[in-house]
Amino acid sequence: MSEPKSKNITWHGAEISAEKREELLGQRGCVLWFTGLSGSGKSTVARRLEQKLLSRHVHTYALDGDNVRMGLNKDLGFSPEDRNENIRRIGCVCQLFAESACVTTASFVSPYRASRDAARAMVGAAFIEVHVATSLEVCEARDPKGLYKKARAGLIPNFTGISAPYEEPLHAEITLDTELHTVDESADQVIAYLETNAFISA
Amino acid sequence: MSEPKSKNITWHGAEISAEKREELLGQRGCVLWFTGLSGSGKSTVARRLEQKLLSRHVHTYALDGDNVRMGLNKDLGFSPEDRNENIRRIGCVCQLFAESACVTTASFVSPYRASRDAARAMVGAAFIEVHVATSLEVCEARDPKGLYKKARAGLIPNFTGISAPYEEPLHAEITLDTELHTVDESADQVIAYLETNAFISA
Repeated sequence: MSEPKSKNITWHGAEISAEKREELLGQRGCVLWFTGLSGSGKSTVARRLEQKLLSRHVHTYALDGDNVRMGLNKDLGFSPEDRNENIRRIGCVCQLFAESACVTTASFVSPYRASRDAARAMVGAAFIEVHVATSLEVCEARDPKGLYKKARAGLIPNFTGISAPYEEPLHAEITLDTELHTVDESADQVIAYLETNAFISA
Repeated sequence: MSEPKSKNITWHGAEISAEKREELLGQRGCVLWFTGLSGSGKSTVARRLEQKLLSRHVHTYALDGDNVRMGLNKDLGFSPEDRNENIRRIGCVCQLFAESACVTTASFVSPYRASRDAARAMVGAAFIEVHVATSLEVCEARDPKGLYKKARAGLIPNFTGISAPYEEPLHAEITLDTELHTVDESADQVIAYLETNAFISA
């Protein structure tokens, strides 16, 4: 047999473009990259945002340590090489989700400008840096997981804000002040940005 | 400062359940895992399916070598360890997409039952194995990338079907016969399965 039985099979189907996909779904894919100290409220705001977007039938998904460190990156530790590989893989996954037209949130302390910029480079124009700018004092007072207490006692080495640096974003697209605003208000601030920049319809 | 300024901030927002997400979006996340020989039509059917689903406003995304081997898995080669890690990471990404309620397609030769079963174990009940059961003879006659010719000439070692095994699925949820049916008909067969099993609405 030298030829397929069916002659009318197209063996290179036209791919659907990102623009066509976004037009059909009525939303533009993007990555909201939440960065901030432990306890600043990154995941909390991202999860509230997720609820609000889903209630508007916007397709959205939240990536964070819970679903990445336990699965995709469970082979990685906290050496400099592993931290870089951690962010590299997360950036790649974010890029895939953004290409799928999903309004994606990524919540990671991500204390280094270089690694955030690497994620930005992977995702491109759809990358939106969200600085959850809660002060160290407030984060330490909240200490929802008791991590600051342990870090102060010397039980956690290289803890961001205590024994390791946090490099604040210089040009974040969105800065959230969770000391002045509630979780609801912070989520609404992000939604306003998404509407203004036509990632979702108003 | 010992306490947050805002007292009414909830620091552990309720997470949205997978069920709630699916209810809001009107579709159930799943992974259609296309397996078959090179040239069998995996990506071609998956891309046509993507077009059909998007025209029905179903959120869908196609994972394949083009967007995974070049990005997330670009550090991996073809050693047995790297092949396993390749499928492990793809399985994890599939699981994330399925959890996001996306009707996800994954098109990889994936010749080993053990690695397909590993992906199935990661994704769970939302895993749908799609065997693109085109015969070696037809794939070799199509040879869209000229790979069989090179493999026969000994220029590509360990080429599935020629010098490396393809372990056929024993219990695939869907089997496609692309020798008898067109790309369009094959995509429709998958859509019928998704409707019958309530992953999408009819």
